[in-house]
Amino acid sequence: SRSIDLAVIPGDGIGQEVVAEGLKVLSAVLPQDVKLETKEYDFGARRYHATGETLTDADLDALKQHDAILLGAIGDPSVPSGVLERGFLLKLRFAFDHHVNLRPSKLLPGVATPLAGQPKIDFVVVREGTEGPYTGNGGTIRKGTPHEVATEVSVNTAYGVERVVRDAFARAQARPRKKLTLVHKNNVLTFAGHLWTNIFNKVAEEYPEVTTEYIHVDAATIYLVTQPERFDVIVTDNLFGDIITDLAAAVSGGIGVAASGNINPSREFPSMFEPVHGSAPDIAGQGKADPTATVLSVALLLRHLGYEAEADRIDEAVAADLTERAELPARSTSEIGDALAVRVAG
Amino acid sequence: SRSIDLAVIPGDGIGQEVVAEGLKVLSAVLPQDVKLETKEYDFGARRYHATGETLTDADLDALKQHDAILLGAIGDPSVPSGVLERGFLLKLRFAFDHHVNLRPSKLLPGVATPLAGQPKIDFVVVREGTEGPYTGNGGTIRKGTPHEVATEVSVNTAYGVERVVRDAFARAQARPRKKLTLVHKNNVLTFAGHLWTNIFNKVAEEYPEVTTEYIHVDAATIYLVTQPERFDVIVTDNLFGDIITDLAAAVSGGIGVAASGNINPSREFPSMFEPVHGSAPDIAGQGKADPTATVLSVALLLRHLGYEAEADRIDEAVAADLTERAELPARSTSEIGDALAVRVAG
Ligand SMILES: CC(C)[C@H](C(=O)O)[C@@H](O)C(=O)O
Ligand SMILES: CC(C)[C@H](C(=O)O)[C@@H](O)C(=O)O
Repeated sequence: SRSIDLAVIPGDGIGQEVVAEGLKVLSAVLPQDVKLETKEYDFGARRYHATGETLTDADLDALKQHDAILLGAIGDPSVPSGVLERGFLLKLRFAFDHHVNLRPSKLLPGVATPLAGQPKIDFVVVREGTEGPYTGNGGTIRKGTPHEVATEVSVNTAYGVERVVRDAFARAQARPRKKLTLVHKNNVLTFAGHLWTNIFNKVAEEYPEVTTEYIHVDAATIYLVTQPERFDVIVTDNLFGDIITDLAAAVSGGIGVAASGNINPSREFPSMFEPVHGSAPDIAGQGKADPTATVLSVALLLRHLGYEAEADRIDEAVAADLTERAELPARSTSEIGDALAVRVAG
Repeated sequence: SRSIDLAVIPGDGIGQEVVAEGLKVLSAVLPQDVKLETKEYDFGARRYHATGETLTDADLDALKQHDAILLGAIGDPSVPSGVLERGFLLKLRFAFDHHVNLRPSKLLPGVATPLAGQPKIDFVVVREGTEGPYTGNGGTIRKGTPHEVATEVSVNTAYGVERVVRDAFARAQARPRKKLTLVHKNNVLTFAGHLWTNIFNKVAEEYPEVTTEYIHVDAATIYLVTQPERFDVIVTDNLFGDIITDLAAAVSGGIGVAASGNINPSREFPSMFEPVHGSAPDIAGQGKADPTATVLSVALLLRHLGYEAEADRIDEAVAADLTERAELPARSTSEIGDALAVRVAG
């Protein structure tokens, strides 16, 4: 009989609330013969303040045993900027080699967007997750003096770029439009830019059916607001991916519905699924957070584990819920979760 | 008697066309007692193909003699990506220490924006121009092999950051709303991020009237489309500034009206003014390019040289022209230039 052994990391702020709804919908969608086991981990600001720890080797060993990880949000203003981001989130992405950071954007009919004229938006960003400016390479000399110098080193390897570019080509090939856009800044960041561009062009030869294009990251932000329908699959570096996926979320229904997967396609380590939004301490504990991004992240998780039909049911439930939302009075976090659970079960 | 000695670099593609209109409006707005001298320089793709040169030491010596530089656009698909960008544009910004890259965004009434609901947009981005990921530091080993490693080093100095942060605070202090936003990614790029944040907070103490905030670059792209009215002055690093000013241009009337100044406030070297758009080879030579961004760059140039009243006249002429544009049939590059020249003279 089938089973899913899930590590659950609610984290900080609204993370707790949205993860509860994600699990509610997950339980509702799974067939009876699938045994769901969950183990909750107490990472984030509270543990950091209590113990000084963010993510230990023992933690990584424990997490490694699970089939997948569901994360709410990590981060709190009481912790200095960078401590939990580098010490937990990025440490986990790097330790488990989550090199495919998958972020779909789809604007559903009736959903509010800041863009005029309800454009057709349906693309997915494949963001590299283990290299680039996120490596933490670099340093500071003469800190705090007028002669301080701080460097950040973006590290890009053929190995790291090729595997994520291949993943993106395979995804583009599997979609009806079969189009892949490389986003970089190869006219300025010429070392990394040439590596990305050369590998992209080389792999393209193996995918004659995939239409390819290259766009500078600055121009990509323009197209995301003026002609987002031009995109199908985008592949890009870690930092550019961070930036354009927030913009993509904003134009396609907002950060409340943006899901993401930190995927290790080799399955050597568990993949992690999380909403793109943060811990939003200003609205935490008030039942105001939208759990939709977490629920959609659960769908990505199910798809990753091979539960295609269940993932589709969640996507359909969310689409139906979002489309009706404009006519409904505002609902609480758990009311939205309840509604989605009913839909996926029904 | 007063005089302006201007270096003119039309450059590639539509650069030629838009610069002609910029000069037309400049001549029209200047009082009779101001002697305007211009010298044209033939930089760009043509010269590169003919001589292999992009910008020589002798070129820099010649340019140095002028009061300011007006640039159209540099870049052509016939030249490998990066050659003219690094060999000309960035070389000039670095050689003349253009550390304040000034990019105003103002959405005028009646002007088309991709955003719904015509938000109020009136802010200016102060982008650092001589450091960060743009230094060209880094390199490649094992090029073209499966073991290639390419690095890009972002270099940030207290000297470089403090001078641009000071410039931004002075600009915020001089504006009615007196608000300054630092945009960075200090939770991931912690070395550079802490340098920027510490200097920003230190200089803030000298400007008690200026309201300050910090926003991560990814979140900044969200706010630029959901609440652009929140921004007054933004200060940011070279790469983040590149990205967010293209987005800012897109939401505030498009790249056809986005002006920029590459400013050396010490006046040790001439400052350079250019539209944010590129050479747009696809529409070059057809009289289709909008010269407005170049004309607004001429206004920034005049303001830099102390011709405040003339700069204001250009800004007003452009505002009037843009507001009426929705009702007019499409005009050619020179027709728009003519209309603006008439307005500023009148
Ligand atoms: C919190 C931060 C480290 C993270 C990132 O920059 O990747 C976040 O912005 C994201 O996009 O998941
Ligand atoms: C052409 C390129 C080098 C340049 C930059 O990245 O600065 C351009 O995008 C700009 O914004 O002026």
